[in-house]
Amino acid sequence: MYPNDGFRELGRDECLRLLVSVPVGRIVHTRQALPAVLPVNFCLDGDGSVLLRASAASELARAVDGAVVAFEVDEVDAVRNAGWSVVVTGRAAVVTEPAERARLARIAPRSWAPSPREVFVRIHPELVTGRELVGGRTLYGVDLAP
Amino acid sequence: MYPNDGFRELGRDECLRLLVSVPVGRIVHTRQALPAVLPVNFCLDGDGSVLLRASAASELARAVDGAVVAFEVDEVDAVRNAGWSVVVTGRAAVVTEPAERARLARIAPRSWAPSPREVFVRIHPELVTGRELVGGRTLYGVDLAP
Repeated sequence: MYPNDGFRELGRDECLRLLVSVPVGRIVHTRQALPAVLPVNFCLDGDGSVLLRASAASELARAVDGAVVAFEVDEVDAVRNAGWSVVVTGRAAVVTEPAERARLARIAPRSWAPSPREVFVRIHPELVTGRELVGGRTLYGVDLAP
Repeated sequence: MYPNDGFRELGRDECLRLLVSVPVGRIVHTRQALPAVLPVNFCLDGDGSVLLRASAASELARAVDGAVVAFEVDEVDAVRNAGWSVVVTGRAAVVTEPAERARLARIAPRSWAPSPREVFVRIHPELVTGRELVGGRTLYGVDLAP
């Protein structure tokens, strides 16, 4: 979060509640030394880690395996000037353990572009931050401004 | 774009058309050596550069000035499995020239959290990429799958 920017910081529990309320987030990483960002569907595992499914042949899986990434979700209503964003920052890793892969095959969301050989990527939630835009109304529709 | 991932790449003109169709994007940069991402409203300038307005006191303005950043917009319908994303990658710079600042004060979108001292950030569109998720239907609602 950035201080002095007029937004309300959200606590970790609130962030995790909001995180599961939307089906699509964006994974932010480095690709060929440049910032890269890609929308993906995801789910949260029981320990709060973010789970993605990707084609084993995709560059995404190779690019993020072992790297620290950010995973962002948001919901912003530009007309009402209200919304929120949540960012999970942590190390991403392709899951290799067979029993865990079998479990994730049941719970992780389907790929948008299914592939015969898929991998699961787990992002460990080392840092979970969020902020709410309170431009007139809060996230829950309660007026804050007089 | 990532090869082998089953998505259709979009051309630069198509990307720029989509870019102006949504009011909110996400700026991706590095903050204290970690990937950082923040939703912001924006507009496109005549030369295709992305314009943001931020508080002069914000860490965002300091963090991105002179840095190569990515700016992402997307629209994904997770139910219909359709959507698109566009990423502009390039150097960001706080605009310092007084006449240019005066012009941008008229055209750049209002901050979500207006501040008495605001700056304008311009992202030069050195690389513009996009991809369309064609899971059954294209962006324009035309069936692609037989």
